[in-house]
Parts: sequence; C-alpha cells; structure tokens
Amino acid sequence: MTTYFEGIEPIRYEGPRSTNPLAFRHYDPERIVLGKPLKDQLRFAVCYWHTFCWDGFDVFGEGTFERPWQAPGDPMARATEKMDVAFDFFAKLGAPFWTFHDYDIAPEGATIRESRDNLARMIDRAEAKQEATGMRLLWGTAKNFGYKRYMAGAATNPDPEVFAYAASQVQQAMGATHRLGGANYVLWGGREGYETLLNTDLKREQEQLGRFLQMVVEHKHKIGFKGAILIEPKPQEPTKHQYDYDTATVFGFLQKYGLENEIKVNIEVNHATLAGHTFQHELATASALGIFGSVDANRGDYQNGWDTDQFPNSVEDMMLACYEIIKAGGFTTGGFNFDTKLRRTSIAPDDLFHAHIGAMDTLALAFTKAAELYESGSLRDFVEQRYQGWNNALGQDILGGRMDLDAVAEYAVAKDIDPQPVSSRQEMLENRVNRILYG
Amino acid sequence: MTTYFEGIEPIRYEGPRSTNPLAFRHYDPERIVLGKPLKDQLRFAVCYWHTFCWDGFDVFGEGTFERPWQAPGDPMARATEKMDVAFDFFAKLGAPFWTFHDYDIAPEGATIRESRDNLARMIDRAEAKQEATGMRLLWGTAKNFGYKRYMAGAATNPDPEVFAYAASQVQQAMGATHRLGGANYVLWGGREGYETLLNTDLKREQEQLGRFLQMVVEHKHKIGFKGAILIEPKPQEPTKHQYDYDTATVFGFLQKYGLENEIKVNIEVNHATLAGHTFQHELATASALGIFGSVDANRGDYQNGWDTDQFPNSVEDMMLACYEIIKAGGFTTGGFNFDTKLRRTSIAPDDLFHAHIGAMDTLALAFTKAAELYESGSLRDFVEQRYQGWNNALGQDILGGRMDLDAVAEYAVAKDIDPQPVSSRQEMLENRVNRILYG
Amino acid sequence: MTTYFEGIEPIRYEGPRSTNPLAFRHYDPERIVLGKPLKDQLRFAVCYWHTFCWDGFDVFGEGTFERPWQAPGDPMARATEKMDVAFDFFAKLGAPFWTFHDYDIAPEGATIRESRDNLARMIDRAEAKQEATGMRLLWGTAKNFGYKRYMAGAATNPDPEVFAYAASQVQQAMGATHRLGGANYVLWGGREGYETLLNTDLKREQEQLGRFLQMVVEHKHKIGFKGAILIEPKPQEPTKHQYDYDTATVFGFLQKYGLENEIKVNIEVNHATLAGHTFQHELATASALGIFGSVDANRGDYQNGWDTDQFPNSVEDMMLACYEIIKAGGFTTGGFNFDTKLRRTSIAPDDLFHAHIGAMDTLALAFTKAAELYESGSLRDFVEQRYQGWNNALGQDILGGRMDLDAVAEYAVAKDIDPQPVSSRQEMLENRVNRILYG
Amino acid sequence: MTTYFEGIEPIRYEGPRSTNPLAFRHYDPERIVLGKPLKDQLRFAVCYWHTFCWDGFDVFGEGTFERPWQAPGDPMARATEKMDVAFDFFAKLGAPFWTFHDYDIAPEGATIRESRDNLARMIDRAEAKQEATGMRLLWGTAKNFGYKRYMAGAATNPDPEVFAYAASQVQQAMGATHRLGGANYVLWGGREGYETLLNTDLKREQEQLGRFLQMVVEHKHKIGFKGAILIEPKPQEPTKHQYDYDTATVFGFLQKYGLENEIKVNIEVNHATLAGHTFQHELATASALGIFGSVDANRGDYQNGWDTDQFPNSVEDMMLACYEIIKAGGFTTGGFNFDTKLRRTSIAPDDLFHAHIGAMDTLALAFTKAAELYESGSLRDFVEQRYQGWNNALGQDILGGRMDLDAVAEYAVAKDIDPQPVSSRQEMLENRVNRILYG
Repeated sequence: MTTYFEGIEPIRYEGPRSTNPLAFRHYDPERIVLGKPLKDQLRFAVCYWHTFCWDGFDVFGEGTFERPWQAPGDPMARATEKMDVAFDFFAKLGAPFWTFHDYDIAPEGATIRESRDNLARMIDRAEAKQEATGMRLLWGTAKNFGYKRYMAGAATNPDPEVFAYAASQVQQAMGATHRLGGANYVLWGGREGYETLLNTDLKREQEQLGRFLQMVVEHKHKIGFKGAILIEPKPQEPTKHQYDYDTATVFGFLQKYGLENEIKVNIEVNHATLAGHTFQHELATASALGIFGSVDANRGDYQNGWDTDQFPNSVEDMMLACYEIIKAGGFTTGGFNFDTKLRRTSIAPDDLFHAHIGAMDTLALAFTKAAELYESGSLRDFVEQRYQGWNNALGQDILGGRMDLDAVAEYAVAKDIDPQPVSSRQEMLENRVNRILYG
Repeated sequence: MTTYFEGIEPIRYEGPRSTNPLAFRHYDPERIVLGKPLKDQLRFAVCYWHTFCWDGFDVFGEGTFERPWQAPGDPMARATEKMDVAFDFFAKLGAPFWTFHDYDIAPEGATIRESRDNLARMIDRAEAKQEATGMRLLWGTAKNFGYKRYMAGAATNPDPEVFAYAASQVQQAMGATHRLGGANYVLWGGREGYETLLNTDLKREQEQLGRFLQMVVEHKHKIGFKGAILIEPKPQEPTKHQYDYDTATVFGFLQKYGLENEIKVNIEVNHATLAGHTFQHELATASALGIFGSVDANRGDYQNGWDTDQFPNSVEDMMLACYEIIKAGGFTTGGFNFDTKLRRTSIAPDDLFHAHIGAMDTLALAFTKAAELYESGSLRDFVEQRYQGWNNALGQDILGGRMDLDAVAEYAVAKDIDPQPVSSRQEMLENRVNRILYG
Repeated sequence: MTTYFEGIEPIRYEGPRSTNPLAFRHYDPERIVLGKPLKDQLRFAVCYWHTFCWDGFDVFGEGTFERPWQAPGDPMARATEKMDVAFDFFAKLGAPFWTFHDYDIAPEGATIRESRDNLARMIDRAEAKQEATGMRLLWGTAKNFGYKRYMAGAATNPDPEVFAYAASQVQQAMGATHRLGGANYVLWGGREGYETLLNTDLKREQEQLGRFLQMVVEHKHKIGFKGAILIEPKPQEPTKHQYDYDTATVFGFLQKYGLENEIKVNIEVNHATLAGHTFQHELATASALGIFGSVDANRGDYQNGWDTDQFPNSVEDMMLACYEIIKAGGFTTGGFNFDTKLRRTSIAPDDLFHAHIGAMDTLALAFTKAAELYESGSLRDFVEQRYQGWNNALGQDILGGRMDLDAVAEYAVAKDIDPQPVSSRQEMLENRVNRILYG
Repeated sequence: MTTYFEGIEPIRYEGPRSTNPLAFRHYDPERIVLGKPLKDQLRFAVCYWHTFCWDGFDVFGEGTFERPWQAPGDPMARATEKMDVAFDFFAKLGAPFWTFHDYDIAPEGATIRESRDNLARMIDRAEAKQEATGMRLLWGTAKNFGYKRYMAGAATNPDPEVFAYAASQVQQAMGATHRLGGANYVLWGGREGYETLLNTDLKREQEQLGRFLQMVVEHKHKIGFKGAILIEPKPQEPTKHQYDYDTATVFGFLQKYGLENEIKVNIEVNHATLAGHTFQHELATASALGIFGSVDANRGDYQNGWDTDQFPNSVEDMMLACYEIIKAGGFTTGGFNFDTKLRRTSIAPDDLFHAHIGAMDTLALAFTKAAELYESGSLRDFVEQRYQGWNNALGQDILGGRMDLDAVAEYAVAKDIDPQPVSSRQEMLENRVNRILYG
C-alpha cells in the first residue's frame, strides 16, 4: 500500500467552530439541502492531472513537488504507483467522484498500439480501484493537446492523419469512460484554435471540428453511453484564439452543426474570467440556452492574464454561482470538478488536503447559503415583480407575434406613451444577498 | 451658407509626397484597385453623432468644442444649422456616404408625436441636402440608448411600453432610412444587456430581443427596404454585459431566432478589441459564418479599457483587416463608417479634417496593399498547400461522413500512424506581409 | 427644511439578524474593536460629488436622477438647496465625516473673482452646517480637471496661466479645508498625464507637477494646516496615462522632489484594480514605504475597464484590506471615504441610503473580522516563523552590510550549501482566513 | 563543425525589393544614419535561452523543436554542441552581439562547486568562440528563477542561504561578463515578488532586495567592471506580483536604496505592455528619469495576458519607440536584444533565421524612419512651440521658486485670468508620423 499520505486520517466533518485544519467545517456530506444530501447536490470530483501528474513546473521554472511516482522509472510501474496514491487520496478526502484524461493514467507508448495497450491495462486497474473504494467517475476525456503531433490542432489540424490520431484517442477514451460508468464525457479543445490567421483557414478548421463533434455524438449513441457529452469553453491559452471561446460561442457552433440538443458545456471558472465574463454569467447563459452541464470549479486571478487554476476560496462569488445552478435545477449528470492546481510553492504532501478541504468547504457553504437565498425568494420575487408588465396585453401581444412594428408604433403614438423608469435597486439587492450570507 | 469651415477647400488627392496636410496622399478615389475605383471599394461614410453632436465632454469634464450649433437656442433652428455644417463638411471631405441616428439630426420633442414631427421635418431637409450634394446614406439607426427611459434596456426593458417606445423609433428610422436610399439599417443595443444578474431575467430579456429583431426583419420586407439589416456587436459599456457581445455570440443568437439569413453584423474595430478579439478575427469569423455586413472603422487603445473611438491610423492593422474583407469578396451594401471621435483636446475646426483625412489615407493605403497581398497569392498558396492532405481519401471520407469514429480509429491503429508535424511558418509569413507593405 | 429624504429616520444599528433594510446590521459605531469605537477606527466619510452633484449621466446617456437641486435655477440658490439636502443626508446616515471639491459646493462664476466669492459664501454655510450637525471634514480638494481650461492638464498644462488658475483654486480650497477643520487635503491629478507622447514633453510636465506639489507643501506650513497632504493615484482615465499611476510610482515621484516625508497617498480601490493591482497590494506597498494616508472605499468591476466606482460589498476583499490597515497601525488622519456612485438605474431617493448602509456594514464586518484575524496571530506567527532564518548570523551579516558579494559567494561555496525549499502554505493560510470570516 | 544550419549562407543586405526570404531588405549594417552605421545604432543581440535552450514546450504541451543538442546525453558535451551551433548561428545572422544566463551555456552540476566548474569551462569556450567569430557580449545575467530552490524568491527568499546561493551565481556571472567584455550586466527578478500577501513580509523582502542590489553595485566597482548594471522590470508572471513592476516603480526603489545613479533599466517590450504601458511610454519615462539603459526587443499579444515574447514585426510601433531612443541620445552601452521566442509550431531550423531577419528589418526600417522624423523636426517644433509660455516671466517665476502659492493665486485674481485652451492636434501629428513612414 502507498504511504505517501501516511499519517493523514480520512477527513471528517467537524462543524464551523473546528480548528482542525484537516477537517471539514462546512461540508457535511449527509446534510440535506433543498431535499438532497449535500454530497449529491455538489457531486465533488478530484482531477487526476493537476493533482497527480503535474510536477510543479511553470514556464519559468522546473518542477518543485518531487512526487515519488514522477521520478524516473518503468513507466507502467510508475503509473500503477500513481494510481494507488490517487485512490488513496480520493478515499481519504471523501469526494465521491474523480476525473481523468487518457494519458494521465497510462504512459504513452512508442506506437499507437502500445499506447492503447497501456491505457487498456490501466483502465482495468482503475475499474478495480473504483470497486474497492466506491469512487465513481464524473467524466473522462482524451488529452488531445499535449503531444507534439497536436501542436497545430487535433480535429482542426491541417493534416487529416492527426485528426485520425485524435479520433482514435477519443474512441478509446469514450469506451473507457463508458466502461467505468462515467456520468459524462468531456472535450476540451486546447489546440483547436489558431496562432495567426496568416496561416489558417478558419472556416475549414471549423468544419473539421463540427464533423469531429458529430462523430463523437454518433459514437455515443452507437455504444449506448448514457452520459452527457460536454464541451469545455476557453477563450485562449495555449492558442491565441480557441474556437470554443465561451458558452455563447459554443452554442452558436452547436446550432450550426445541429448539435445543440446533444452537447452541453462544462464551464470552468477561470476560463469564464479569461473570456471577460463572470462565472455566474456563463452559468446563467448556459442555463438560458439549455446547455448547462457541469463545472470545473477553480478560480483565476483578476490581475494575472493566464489560467492560474487556483482552488476556489470565495464564498461570495460561489454563492451567486450556486444560486444560478439552483435556479437551473441543480446538477443532473454534472458536478463540481476541482480542475485546480496547488501553487507550485505548496510542496508539502498535506497541501493537497488543505487545498481540497478549503475548496469543498467554500462550495458547501456557498451552496447552503445560495439555497437559503433561493428559498427566501427575496431575489426571485423582486425580479418577477419587475417584469410583470409583460404579462399584460401589450407585452403578450408583442411576444405572441400579434403586433408588428407598425402596430406597436401606432400604439405608442396613439397613446402618446411616456413610460417612466423605475429604480432597478442593485444596491438594495446586493444588501439582501449579504444579509443572508452574513446573517 | 455655413462659414464654420471657411477657408478650407475641398480635399484633393495629391499623392504620397504631398506635404499639404489638407490633401489626401493615398486616397485617390478614382484609382482602380481589384477592378473597381477605390471609392467604391472603401465606401467611406462620415458619422453624424461624434462628429457633429458630441461637444467634447467626458465622464470627468465638460464639453470643449464650443460648436456654434451646440449653443443654447431654438432646437429646430440649431438642428438645421448643424445639418448645413454637416453637409458642408461631407462635401468638402469627399467621402461618398454619411450615417446617422434619428435624434442626431432632429431634437427630441416634449411628446412622442412632437419628436416624430421634428424628425420628419429634418428627414425632408436631409433628402434635399442629399440631392444637392450627391451624398448617399450608408445607414440609419435609432438612438435607443441615450434617454432616461432606456436606462434599463429598450427591447429588453422590464416594461413593455419602453419596448413600444423603442419600436416606434425604429419604425420611423427604418422608414427614413428607406426613403433616403440607405444601403443598410443598423441596430446597436447599447442598453440591451444587464448591470447585475441579481435583478435580471436573462432568458426573458433575450426572448424580448429576439422578438424585436424578428419584427424588424418583418418590417423590412413589409416596406420593401432592400438594404441589409445589421447588428453591431459590443461586449460591454455602457452596460456591464451587452447581449450582442461579439460576432460569434450574435451568430448564435440569430440562429436561435431563425434570423441568420436575414441579419448580418456591423463590426466596429474598438468593439472587437474590447471583446478580447482582433478586428481581423471578427471579420474572419463573420465571413466564415456568412454574416459579414459593414464596418465601423476606428481604433481603441489597448492600454485603456473603454471605447476611445479614435481615428484609425495603423496601416499595418488595417492591411490585415482589408485582406479579410477582400477574401470575403469586399463590401456589398457595407462600407467603412468613421464611428470616430476627435480627442477632446482637438478643438480646432480643421481637426475634423485632419482626422478624417488621416483615417481615409490609412484605409486607402491598407486596402491597396492588401489587394497587392491578395493578388500575389503569397499567403493563399501557403494556406492551400498546408491543408492539401484533406483533399485525399482519408480527409474526404471523414468530412463526407463516410467514416465513423470506430472506422477512423481502426484506420489509425491498422496503419499504426505517426503523423509528423510541419512548421506552420508564422514568422516567415509575417515577413511576407511586411515585404509587401514596406517593399 | 429639506424634504427630499422625508420619511427616512436616522439609521440605527439593529444587529445581524435585523431584516430592516434601512438599519445597520454590522456597523455599531460605539462597539470597541482593537481598543477604539468602530466609528473612530473606520472614520467613514460621504462624498459630495457623486452623491449630490452627479445626475446619473454616462458617456452614452443623459442624467437619470432628476434631483430637484439639479434642475435649472439660480446657481447659488441651487447650491444652497443641495447643501441642505447633503447635510440632512449626512445627519440621517450617521457617518461622521464628509468630503468635497471646491466646485461641488459652489457654482463656478463668470470670472475667477466671482467663482472665489461664490465659494467663500458656501464655505460660510458649510461651517455653520458642520456646527449644527456635528459633521466633520475628512478632506477637501480642488476640482482641477473638469473645466475646459484643464483639458490638457492643470499643473502640467503647456500654458503657465492654466497652472496659475489651478494654483489659485488649490490655494482657496486649502484655506477652506483648514478653516473647516479638515483632517487632510487631497490632490487627484485627473488631467495630469498625457493623451499621446507625440505632443507631450513628459519630463517638463513632471517638473511642473513636482514644483506644484512643493508649493502645496510650503503653503500647508505657511498657513499652519496640520492635516496630511495626500495624492490619489490613478493609472489612466480620463487621460491615456496619468502621472500618479499607482502608489509605487507616486513614491518615486515624491522622492525625486524631496517630498516623501510630506505627502502620503489616498488609495482608491477601483484605481488600484485599474492599475493591475489588488487594493490590498496598494495598502501593503504604501505601508511598507511609509506613505499610507487614507482610502477611497469603493469597488470596480473586473470585467469592465473603467472606473465604475460601485459601493463596496465584498467582505472577503475588504477583510484582507482592513488587515493591512490594521498592520499599518490603523488610520491616523485618514478614513474610509465613499467615493462611490449609485448605478445610474438606482433612481429612488432611498437608494442612496441602501448603498451607503451596505457599504458601511461591509466595512464594519470586514474590519471586525480583520481585527479578529490580527489578534489571533494566525498569519503573523506563520510569517515570522517563515523568515526566522534572517535573524541568524548569515542573514544579519548580509543585511548589516558586513559581507560583500565575494564573501557571500565564498560562504556558499565553502559550505557547499544546498538550501531546501519549504512549503509556503498559501492554501492552508487561505483556509485560516475563511475560518475566521465564516467561523 | 556543426551542420544544423547547413545550406544557409550568411545573411546579406539585398535592399527593399529583394524577394529572397533569407536576406535583409532594410538592415544595411553599414548604412550611416544619424552619423553612425546602423549596426552601431541598433546594436542587435541574439539571446541564448529562447533561441538555443527552449525546446518548444508550453504549459499545455511538450517540446516540439527536437534540437539535437537537447537530446539526452552527457551534459557538458551537449552544452558544447549547443555553443557551437549558437556561434554558427550568430556568425551567419550577422548580429554583432549575444546575451546569456549562466546556466544557458553550462549545465547545473550536483553541487554548487560542480556547477561553478561547469560554468567556468564553458566561459573559456565562449571566450574562444568570441575571438574566433568577432561576436561581442551585450550582457550576461544569472538564472536566479528556474531552480526549485528559488521558487519563493532569490534575494527575497525567506531563507538567507537561498540569498547566498543566488549571490554566488551573480558573483560568478558578473565575473564572466566582465571577462567576456560584456557591455552590461542585467538582473531580472523573476521570482522577486509574491504569490500572496498572506505569507509575505513585503517590507522585509524589499529590504533584502535593496541590499542585494547594493552588493551588486559594490562588486561592480570592486572588480572594475565598466559596463552598466541594468534591472529588467516586469509586472507579474511567473509571480502574481513582481517588485520590479515597471520603470517608474524601479526608479522609486533605486532612490530608496541610493542606487538611482548606479543602475539603469533594461526595458522589454512585452513586459511594458503586460504592465499596462506602451513600450514607448517606458522608454520616455526611463529617459526622463535618466535611467534608460537597454532594450529587450520583442512583442506581446494584446489579446493574450502572458509573455508571448514574439519577434517584433510592427514598424509603426517600433518607429515611435526608436524616436524616443533617438531623443534620449541613442544607445550607449545598451542595444536591441532579441529576447524572443519562435512560435512553438515554427519547428524548421530556418525559422530561426526568418524570425530574426524579420525582426532586424523591422527595427532597421523603424530606426531609419524615426531618424527621418527626428531630423525633420516636425514633432519637436510643435512641442517646443506648445510649451513656449513657460519661457515667459510667469512660467520662469513659478519653476524658479520665486512665487509661492499665495503669490500665484494673487496673480491669477489680480489679472482676472481666463486662459483659453488650444488644440493639442493629436490627429494632425499622427498624420505627420504616417507621412514620413509611408511617404
């Protein structure tokens, strides 16, 4: 058995006054909120990549973590060791789900066949680990961005053999996700974009991507996968411009390829802010468009222009986000996945626990307070009252298509209308939110 | 007759070596480029609002320009004086088009009826002015954002009477545009967005906006207006978030309401950069999606986070933008409209000429060089070569839907493919562009 | 007596569970925190300009507030009416301080003399109002940015008569501040910067500004004003670049002109974020440099690139800011001034109360929690422990100048040192902060 | 001999009409501009790190370049191979200077002593290579940011032994730079900043950094190094906040530690834009403050928030920058160093040539045009005229300290001054610049 986290007991809920840094103060998994236990509302997942594969390197410096399983050695033995540690961490932390890319869990081989064999063997092990620990898979995905072959795109590559290589990864990763009982399958197009328009046929690349997504959806139905297919929007980084820029852009893309009822979005907080939106905005947009799927819960830094992927620690921000999720009906297949990186200076093994505990407490408190806000009706009542005029004849005739532009103009002139503005009460409503959070 | 620009002669083309600051050095309207005179390729328009209505105020300071027609006085007399000066300016500058909002040219009255009467009278005058000067209208629009009644939206307002008021303005402005022979009708939703989600029903507001646009399109056909209907995207400012965020967002919106074949975009440079895109990107996107309409030619400031609306002066940036326009087939109904503000410290009357002359020369040189780049084929040939693999069997089978995910994966495995990356040559291509610009 | 806020009773502290929107839930002015009543720790001030002079206009739209005292009328009568309402508001809200610009309280006249006379009369009235209400002046300032004459700078103007005009305003405003018992005098150089370097002699303008500040300091001593002189940094807006960019820039400037012991900074939250810093950073920097003075308490919007000047409502952000203020020893002459604007859609008179109450509660809770964090020592102890190695011989010899570069290099080589990194524990410390805030 | 660039002949100047992509079209090294050959005005340098050490990795993907000297092997043999290729490249390109970090050219050893030995041997080789090729060293520096030991700072580390380790590197690197005849020694504090204030004693860290810089200056004099000591400002990345934020911040820091006459700045274009400034602004600021030293010539991407370090290709931007450099008297010890990265998709060996040739042509044309602008006097004359009022009595009395605030106010009132604003002519001046660039 692994000893990396030796001495750390399974994390338990001890309540808000606990001073034990290795205990939950707000995340009580069995607490019923809005009719379900918190664990089923929040559906926390730990990611494999940042947490077990990243060694702490950044663009300006080498790795800092020195995890034993990242040392040189036989790749499959190291992958096995890594998986043992990962499931040990999962079990001790108590998040019910995990997430992974294909080559997070298995080493790439010298050929495509060897790579697939490696992955197949590690999937077997993951299945056994799931059974042994009770962990479930929130989603799987394929790493179609890290290898040199994908430097100019995977599905959008100028070379169709690269498309084929990516497709073969997705085919295997979807199968693995299906077999492991994954609740969703995710696609993040980290290289599906451009560095410069000078060498790019933007229209052609988008056609390639559209066809790729159609193939994924067809495959889902072919293999009987019942989970959701999710696209993860990101505006840029690593590329200058990524095609899945934000939720609204993805929605336009899905409609163009007839996929708006087949694919939803996996919204990452830091990707939202890099796109110039609040996380709350992306959730509200996805909900309004009917494509809200899941969340990569992290946070960015408003003063730094890249994906810092820090652990969420703002209850204030997350409360408003949870309010949007609750209004949208809560998670169905989705959940809160911690696509989060330690700061590279947080090199102690238990930092992984501190970070995840803080994030889970943040979201648990945020969700609980958002539920209270929702149940109080104090925002909803205001909003409904604000738009009530639209329930009257004029509003209904306009929306019902019973008045054309001339008719509406005639109405305005005939009545000599002079509608008077009403305060929209932003500050008062902000106070209402704070009253619940800090009441 | 107006004397405001007394002493300024009509601006003439004098060639690149001219040192006359009140002459064109690159804009030779009759020069044939890509088969048409430059004036028909560029279709320059002068805007009424910034150029004749704005008094130089900003958020921190009062007006600086002291235009005589902005002094206190009888509103209709002032509007008349302003129109005389405007058409005098148009005639001297030699741009073939102008653009306006309804209440740029006529004062708002005390009632909706008085406002409409004022506008009707000024439209008469504008028609006469057009005839006298040969000026043409690139587009008209309605000012549905400035008045207090629109503070919380026009079409997206919580009060349907405000929607009706806005509709009555658009109905009259479309009629006026039609009568004046406008080539397009534009909608910019400056208040169609939100300040905070706390008081906003985002889905409902988008439904209202969708219905509004449908009414506009129906009205276009009803009155027989042959011009294009254009939406002008902007991400934020004045609102925190504006629904017509960027071209991709607008495209998704149009599809949702069945309008993607009826409405195109009017892309503003500074709006593109505020949205985190290059202007070139927005053009390429609109072209790929088939919704490229027209351009508001200005420039922003990358170090300042608001709409500075400066006059374009970068031939480098505009050359790449013109290249996208040329690839898209050039303007049909659209053109380059100078939605541009003088710096508020440029208070001399002739500053309006300096600014427009510089902008027109910038675009004329940029377009001419872009045409040279286009005709050289030096980018196009590279790009076609780069994607040529897609013309082969694998590529055609993928795009043609003859291979599903399993088939592509089988192909990859059976052939044990190992596609090798090829340099994408960004720096070499950048040098090619500069070789033409500075050759 | 004024009736504008009729029906609103003086705001009282009712405790966290109060549901009265017009009561304080956290701001109990007499509560002792860190040895002083909260009112003396926080030193809240209401600003005159946004709150009583701004009519709700923005760059894209007219005023929305329709305050009676902003209607046309005799300027001095209107100014009197405005002052009566302002002091009525101050008294009902219960903030102990106010702040003003010279021409917030008096109308500009047709000549410099008339302007000074107007101001002198309104200062008399303000003095009487202060006596009647017990209000105190946190600071005064001169509006050297709004008038057309300042469009190209006040002290940095190319015309020395404009410098003289600005100096005359400051001379009178300093006298007024002195007479009204102001605790500080503030300078914000809204036009002290440039639009383009093409027309600017940057070095010359900075010399002018340096001389201006020296004159202000000399004048302070001449008239016996005991308050602090404060510069308010801002990076840009209205100008492209403002010389007092941020705290570090101001510090360099002060040193250059020998003023670093005479002038401190008034840090505005939204200016900090526009400069690419956190508010917390600006406070920590000012404290480390010994120039921390006062605070303009508001908030910006990270997705919008201009000064939104919203009311602070984040306890999380403000708690960390208050922690820096507490570490710096708390306010001496300074305080929290609400340089804050209602959203222009918040047009009801009582919105002014909602907004200020929410802001005061936010800061009261933030300060109280920051005090708890400070008293717990849970951050300080960690930080002291972290740097303890510097108390040893090597550290002391380095800092004490007893080792030169060769000596330190010899030490390193001789000892063959291989210092091992230690976790910096960011996530654990973030959890400690949240444990206190949400405990 | 190395064969990596086999088939590439030394790059020659062939004039603007050349279509040879491996020739200079604007950089004629012997052309006399402003009294000196272009090679002596521009002082181009090639950097070792991006160009020969970086393998094309980014945060999301592995290396792409597959340079032979980056393959596994004996570290000293690989370092030798790399140096041979580097000097082959230098010789073929024809830039007169190179730049390096200590561990760019030598592998780190297992101990501090082994590292120093490795470096000493490679310095010997570099000296021989310089003699053989005629290459000169623009500057050397120490890599005090990449190794794990520096993860929490070098001079600002909480552990004084890390400070000592960094000092030992700088001591050796300064010696090496001196021996190789370097014109400057540079310090970039990539980890001298903080990730979070929660664990940071900002004041203490700045004291450490101040002492470190003093030691560097003392050492310079001790060893008789005649070159300039330069700090390279950067606002953030890799850290959240870097202490050497921008030129103005560095100036304040230098003054605090009495170093403003000893240390200058090395301004990087992309660092300027990340700090919210134009490159031109940083140059003008450094010049006004008397601390302009050298330039890292690259470009960022205004839509991406990280250091893209692309090759400069905008003549427009660089012309205005060169104009500032010319006004500042041109380079003395400094030069244009290409701290530039290929796009990671530019994997062909000759891409290194295309990129550098494009950059050198860009700067050569920019400098030549800037010289023309300077010699024309068309901006300078305008600027001098604009401020001429300051040469009169009032201006001279103010600047000369002969009037205090009261005296100036009395002047203003007595004369009842009403200074009238004058157009600042930004657009006209922009046209003047374009007239020269595109004349």
